[in-house]
Amino acid sequence: MKNALLNLSRLTSSVWSPISGGITTPDGFLAAGISAGLKPSGKKDLALLYAPDGACCSGTFTQSVTRAYCVDLCIDRLKASKGKIRAVVINSGHANACTGSRGKIDSEIITFELAQRLGLSNEEVLICSTGVIGEPIPVEKVISHLDHLINSLDKEEAYLDAANAILTTDLQVKQIAYQAVLGGRRITIGGMAKGSGMIHPSMATMLSYITCDAGIDNVLWSDMINRVADSSFNSITVDGDTSTNDTFLAFSSGAELDPRYLSTLEEGLHLTAQYLAKAIARDGEGANCLLEIKVEGAPSDLDAHAIARTIASSSLVKTAIHGSDPNWGRIIAALGRAGTPFNFNDVKLWIGPYEIFSNGIPLNFDRQKVSDFMKSRLKGKYLIDDIISIRLRIGIGKGSAIAWGCDLSDQYVRINADYTT
Amino acid sequence: MKNALLNLSRLTSSVWSPISGGITTPDGFLAAGISAGLKPSGKKDLALLYAPDGACCSGTFTQSVTRAYCVDLCIDRLKASKGKIRAVVINSGHANACTGSRGKIDSEIITFELAQRLGLSNEEVLICSTGVIGEPIPVEKVISHLDHLINSLDKEEAYLDAANAILTTDLQVKQIAYQAVLGGRRITIGGMAKGSGMIHPSMATMLSYITCDAGIDNVLWSDMINRVADSSFNSITVDGDTSTNDTFLAFSSGAELDPRYLSTLEEGLHLTAQYLAKAIARDGEGANCLLEIKVEGAPSDLDAHAIARTIASSSLVKTAIHGSDPNWGRIIAALGRAGTPFNFNDVKLWIGPYEIFSNGIPLNFDRQKVSDFMKSRLKGKYLIDDIISIRLRIGIGKGSAIAWGCDLSDQYVRINADYTT
Repeated sequence: MKNALLNLSRLTSSVWSPISGGITTPDGFLAAGISAGLKPSGKKDLALLYAPDGACCSGTFTQSVTRAYCVDLCIDRLKASKGKIRAVVINSGHANACTGSRGKIDSEIITFELAQRLGLSNEEVLICSTGVIGEPIPVEKVISHLDHLINSLDKEEAYLDAANAILTTDLQVKQIAYQAVLGGRRITIGGMAKGSGMIHPSMATMLSYITCDAGIDNVLWSDMINRVADSSFNSITVDGDTSTNDTFLAFSSGAELDPRYLSTLEEGLHLTAQYLAKAIARDGEGANCLLEIKVEGAPSDLDAHAIARTIASSSLVKTAIHGSDPNWGRIIAALGRAGTPFNFNDVKLWIGPYEIFSNGIPLNFDRQKVSDFMKSRLKGKYLIDDIISIRLRIGIGKGSAIAWGCDLSDQYVRINADYTT
Repeated sequence: MKNALLNLSRLTSSVWSPISGGITTPDGFLAAGISAGLKPSGKKDLALLYAPDGACCSGTFTQSVTRAYCVDLCIDRLKASKGKIRAVVINSGHANACTGSRGKIDSEIITFELAQRLGLSNEEVLICSTGVIGEPIPVEKVISHLDHLINSLDKEEAYLDAANAILTTDLQVKQIAYQAVLGGRRITIGGMAKGSGMIHPSMATMLSYITCDAGIDNVLWSDMINRVADSSFNSITVDGDTSTNDTFLAFSSGAELDPRYLSTLEEGLHLTAQYLAKAIARDGEGANCLLEIKVEGAPSDLDAHAIARTIASSSLVKTAIHGSDPNWGRIIAALGRAGTPFNFNDVKLWIGPYEIFSNGIPLNFDRQKVSDFMKSRLKGKYLIDDIISIRLRIGIGKGSAIAWGCDLSDQYVRINADYTT
């Protein structure tokens, strides 16, 4: 967690402009998304991201001990190839986690078959899976559709097909592209992600991909991507359940970037990743708003991050948000149990523009007005005004961070309880 | 976390028998519970626990930084008096947390007035509060009812009045007494607790009290009570939100116990505390069952405890339980993110009597049968058969632990969201 407050200001940029597009908008990347019959619904379920001239890839992965085999494969091959990756195949519908030794073999077979067809070495090809835990991937179906997948690579709006093919029960496609001119050179960043959906007996799985047409040194790129992951995907929570398959892969390709523009490029990467991360949080199961927790004045960014995540994860805070209830007691209680020491008399709290709590004492605020404000935001789903922002200043330290989450609704419970055997 | 597996076997005992009664069943303790007009409902809201001849008291408290002032007062006075406490006054309705410097003064005034009336020194008197955060205790009302409270001390079934007066929105009174004959001497342990209820803008607050008519050395008693707290109250979760007011106080009084019976006494204390802890979990907001997670074969008891708590806290596991869904994928995923390393191929999982998962691979179990079993337990609220037990063996280590929780229902969301300003 570095520069989280800086990242906040970076959410708007004078340099980077959002443009229509996705992961194939940067030069050097092709994509495809097709239906291989993996999902009973017949929806797209197999995606390919391909860098014909090669790319430098860095990834961050789930910390779960019960991670899926595809995660191990990605980690191993990124190490073996020193980040030189050309293709990623992604299947949705089957997480290929907890499938015994077969899971490993299936991941290897699919990537082997793809590598053969693209003329690549095995270690240049990755695989990501998302969907039901414990059920193996229908390998024959995937392999029999690889030619169709490869033939779809140069289709128009293929980035949209890919972004669709990685979804499970997400309600919204999540993709974005940003462009800037750095030293006379046009640089483009593209991204796509899937979030948490679940009507199958599985759990939320987050997959995210970013492409960029500026070449960056392998080690610099890895450092940058780790910082970007912390300020974006590691700062969101829907239900506190870490997936077996969480994967974030970022690819840089093309002529090397003038080192003077490295920090500006990183700004664009933060913008892209935060856009995708927030899109995942606001599309959380049963969610009606994007909950944004800003913590300032902490001893360190890490402390601020722990507090922001604790508040964003609190069932009591999330149900209060769902009920448009400016229930500062639950926010302060979550702050108290986050594990960071602070002086209670320094604590200030705002909900939206309203100051609620100052120097350790609740203010005499207009509860109805604040509740109405919250209610209006809950109605704004998928609009720019769907954000309920909670801001806490806990002292005079320099640490700050933002975490994103969503409200906890009875719909969340129904989505996750109603699937019975 | 010590001897958690041992504690499991201690849930049944050949020595200790449950008897009708509560905190005044052991010799040397009086109690009272009255209505002081603190709750708008007119229900009992002021309790007193009194040891006329003195008692040795040990306590464990919330780890929250935003803890209530009464918690600080308890900690300070237990230290100053070296555990020699004679009275605890408990008010329900107002948590007296986040009330500025007034909170401290109010706690001191009430205990001063009580000490005066009972002829005690200030440091022999404690106060506990539970209820709405941020609102001060109506001090005048409490003080004007202290004489009535003291006059109610010798009432019959006063223990029941006290157990009622500490409740907020709990549906059930939580109390128990156990008796054993140790070396020819009859020893009695009594206990009462309140759990998590919330229709006010506050958060779950756990208060628990145990009395015992065997005298124990202060240091031995403290050690014992810390172990007891770990195997009981520190092993339950309803919604993951730690309260500002959590307090567990345990009193020993009377002639000193023959040291040969110390471990047997500890067994009785574990029994009592675990009974109360489970009563809190099964009376969790919106709960329909008691969820029991047993973890065995971990490297240490601490590891086992972390895993059991992570699973019991998982929203996805809790909603699956609510939907009678034997969704082992969510259990295994929670296991994976608990932070303890293990060999996945060693993992075995049972839901109730049914083996679901063995040596890293799901078994071909009868989903309908397991679901029917779960459904029958969800209907059994407040009966002995309301327990859904999940057992995990993760290796060959000697570490084990149990955690208790409950299902997550749409009713939980409604209870916590529907209170609007």
